[in-house]
Amino acid sequence: MKQPLGRPRDDRVDRAIATATRAVLAESGYAQLTVDAVAARAGVGKAAIYRRHTTKQQMIFAAVLHDLEIAPPPDSGSMRGDLTALLRDIAVNLTTPPAGVVPGLLADVHGDPALAATFVSTFVAAERGCVEEVLDRAVARGELPRRPDPAVVHALLLGPVFAWLFLLQEDPARLGTVTAALAEAAAAALSDVAPG
Amino acid sequence: MKQPLGRPRDDRVDRAIATATRAVLAESGYAQLTVDAVAARAGVGKAAIYRRHTTKQQMIFAAVLHDLEIAPPPDSGSMRGDLTALLRDIAVNLTTPPAGVVPGLLADVHGDPALAATFVSTFVAAERGCVEEVLDRAVARGELPRRPDPAVVHALLLGPVFAWLFLLQEDPARLGTVTAALAEAAAAALSDVAPG
Repeated sequence: MKQPLGRPRDDRVDRAIATATRAVLAESGYAQLTVDAVAARAGVGKAAIYRRHTTKQQMIFAAVLHDLEIAPPPDSGSMRGDLTALLRDIAVNLTTPPAGVVPGLLADVHGDPALAATFVSTFVAAERGCVEEVLDRAVARGELPRRPDPAVVHALLLGPVFAWLFLLQEDPARLGTVTAALAEAAAAALSDVAPG
Repeated sequence: MKQPLGRPRDDRVDRAIATATRAVLAESGYAQLTVDAVAARAGVGKAAIYRRHTTKQQMIFAAVLHDLEIAPPPDSGSMRGDLTALLRDIAVNLTTPPAGVVPGLLADVHGDPALAATFVSTFVAAERGCVEEVLDRAVARGELPRRPDPAVVHALLLGPVFAWLFLLQEDPARLGTVTAALAEAAAAALSDVAPG
């Protein structure tokens, strides 16, 4: 959270743009957001935005990811506890952005290779690092004989949460029940997953 | 597959629109597709399209779902075999549409309540029916003491496949390995899932 020395004004502009982007997203929705509206809200020129972000989508991506704290959960002492905490973090990551932002960004990721590269090198890589840390702890504790393929485990954890919220459009209030069942099932099943 | 009597010309137009939609999607991509291009390719007027579909997205939805055969897999004799077959069907449903169509439609579903209702009452309901059938067979065979919540199981099966393909952007050629591990893990873990 420390700012690099010598760029206080730039950092203020960065934060103003991110805050304005989130406010406009919450008011207007993903598809309707314009860079003009964000610039006006932030009190900056469009040029200041385009110096920082090559596209509107990259600007939204930066603003939406900004508040996400993607770090491994504290060591709970057991794989099951760690998986429960990790699933809670994944659920927070998916439910924090305003409605429509996650599906909108995902569609744009699939239409824009540069945005896809940003998505994979930031969000996916950070969450993958958490999965690897939780699996490595389980190996160190002797709960797993070896580390399963982290990509497969990532899909097994992230997928059902995403499906519940965005594909099946089930009640977000029931998500805790789903992640609890999923943590239990994943902990029980993980030793069967093919090693990576 | 039998056509209702008395509407052969309409059915031909329906099919021409659907075929043209898929062709234009494959050539131009989801975001670039226009109703004009589909009308020209199908050799029909735009009015003929808008008599059938209230929006461009509903037209795409109908065309993309048209070829999906969503029915329960044949009874394999075991829950694990049925889950393996069901996961194969889910993978086919997600990989058959041209690139970008699934994420594009999903974003539009989240911006359009009418499209969301269509999505839930057709695609989600049909796939849910397959999940229920597979679970009911497992109960009838004595493999499960009672039927777990089908919505939770649906999320556990559909989610990782979707995540592998569209969120983590992993290699589709490895999807078979993922679904095999998932079928095994799901079969092993299902009796732990909270009953519905």
